[in-house]
Amino acid sequence: MELVTISDIEAAAKRVADVAVRTPLLLQTWDPRKTLWLKPENLQPVGAFKVRGAFNAITALDEVVRARGVIAYSSGNHAQAVAYAAQRYGIPAVIVVPDVTPRIKVEATRAYGAEIIEVPLGEHPAKAGELAAERGLTLVPPFDDAAVIAGQGTVGLEIAEDLPDVEVVLVPVSGGGLAAGVGTAIKARCPRARVIGVEPALAGDAADSLRRGELVRWPQADRGRTIADGLRSQPSELTFTHLQAVVDAMVTVSEDEIREAVRVLARQARLVAEPSGAVTTAAYLFHADELPAGRTVAVVSGGNADPALFAEILAER
Amino acid sequence: MELVTISDIEAAAKRVADVAVRTPLLLQTWDPRKTLWLKPENLQPVGAFKVRGAFNAITALDEVVRARGVIAYSSGNHAQAVAYAAQRYGIPAVIVVPDVTPRIKVEATRAYGAEIIEVPLGEHPAKAGELAAERGLTLVPPFDDAAVIAGQGTVGLEIAEDLPDVEVVLVPVSGGGLAAGVGTAIKARCPRARVIGVEPALAGDAADSLRRGELVRWPQADRGRTIADGLRSQPSELTFTHLQAVVDAMVTVSEDEIREAVRVLARQARLVAEPSGAVTTAAYLFHADELPAGRTVAVVSGGNADPALFAEILAER
Repeated sequence: MELVTISDIEAAAKRVADVAVRTPLLLQTWDPRKTLWLKPENLQPVGAFKVRGAFNAITALDEVVRARGVIAYSSGNHAQAVAYAAQRYGIPAVIVVPDVTPRIKVEATRAYGAEIIEVPLGEHPAKAGELAAERGLTLVPPFDDAAVIAGQGTVGLEIAEDLPDVEVVLVPVSGGGLAAGVGTAIKARCPRARVIGVEPALAGDAADSLRRGELVRWPQADRGRTIADGLRSQPSELTFTHLQAVVDAMVTVSEDEIREAVRVLARQARLVAEPSGAVTTAAYLFHADELPAGRTVAVVSGGNADPALFAEILAER
Repeated sequence: MELVTISDIEAAAKRVADVAVRTPLLLQTWDPRKTLWLKPENLQPVGAFKVRGAFNAITALDEVVRARGVIAYSSGNHAQAVAYAAQRYGIPAVIVVPDVTPRIKVEATRAYGAEIIEVPLGEHPAKAGELAAERGLTLVPPFDDAAVIAGQGTVGLEIAEDLPDVEVVLVPVSGGGLAAGVGTAIKARCPRARVIGVEPALAGDAADSLRRGELVRWPQADRGRTIADGLRSQPSELTFTHLQAVVDAMVTVSEDEIREAVRVLARQARLVAEPSGAVTTAAYLFHADELPAGRTVAVVSGGNADPALFAEILAER
């Protein structure tokens, strides 16, 4: 299996430069003994790092193929990222969503000019494949794709550029595209830094898999329990092989720790993070004993929190 | 009266580079007809642009004078900014606060290593002057100071660098240091851009003053009614003279508009803004008819929202 390289990520950085925000590292002073910087990917267009991978994948397409349009299946940030990237190119985008998707997310995706097709839950991947063939659209997968991984890796490249002596990088793991890309960039540029993947304990399948040395499948119903709705996917063979190569350790965090991290990010860092985007901060705050010491960066991967849930979490204490 | 120049601001930019975050411009797609970028100064250390002015003023001091320490009177973001800047220099800082200041703000300032002195409301400026003389400390004023204005002006310099064809810059006005600095930078670098000051209608004394061509004083009790607690000050002769030179027009916004802008910034831009930091977004959203058309930047000046108030505003709709 061919792994994404630092050259792929460098090429992606050039492609996404006009679309992705060059997010700064934000030094935090919560605890003078453990220096922390946040990488606020919630500030990207569409509110998540996903715009990097989607835009890189679409840019990498042959011009004629790209002009026919793209398709994605997702109810989350990837859907909006593909729609946004397609709009920037002025090409058609079709997003297949499960019919249980909250209206607010459907409307946000439609606002980027995408055609939305709602199908019963579970049928959306198959439907996307069918439509891709029928209409000549290119499928942009959420993580199981070298160009998508390389695009997400630009987050790691920027961390290495801004803080060359970084010692610990905390990155969320779901399908593994972000962790694969960031880990690859960090290992190439800052070989002494440790890359730590973070998952909700309720969706700790990647930690489980890495411990056992093989991909372990957790039932969807189990993974679906976490509040971190962006972290309910599981790695593919491609991303898992990357994780084995570039992730030094995994940490899992509890649901209460995630909620508290959402509060701390809002109050101390003035960032709106969705629960999935707050897991790395939860690891920093509550699992210091499992983390290497040193200059730490936590990737805040997204900020599309459901407004009612976000207000509820903030009001808790 | 000698006004701050673009050279002063350029010199300030070099001084604050290691301390202030180089905040990116965040393109928003709320309304395709009116392109908007946010300048998220709520992401600065201490959560507000104030760190720029405080650090520039302290850096500009003679080394021997600086080593004796600094003093400020404030219950708000300027207090924390001076404490933070002093901590970076390893020099003593004394902050005189009114004894009605919320504990959370007092503790945040103390956490930066400052000595806190609480006095009855209204006595804090005099007490600060007294202590400055007694202990040989240098007073760092919140806005009535050329070095502070030049420091705040680095916000405008960055806008001009990142978006040279900016057409409209929206900036909050309270004591006027930020608007004076930003306006000076924008007029020097982007002479065709219009600089629009924004105030809460309940504290619209600067708009009133500019309309009449002279400084009008509004009673503290009137200005104190706005939820935007960072915008209750009024310009000094120094800042007012700058405003007359560099501000093209003023817009005032209602309390309801400010609250809605706080919600929009959280939901659409994933930023925690305090009410004072949201007034420019309120102007963009609700006063388009009073604004020039064109590529617009809104300065989000700070993010130190009271947690309970912020949760309450978010839960409103």
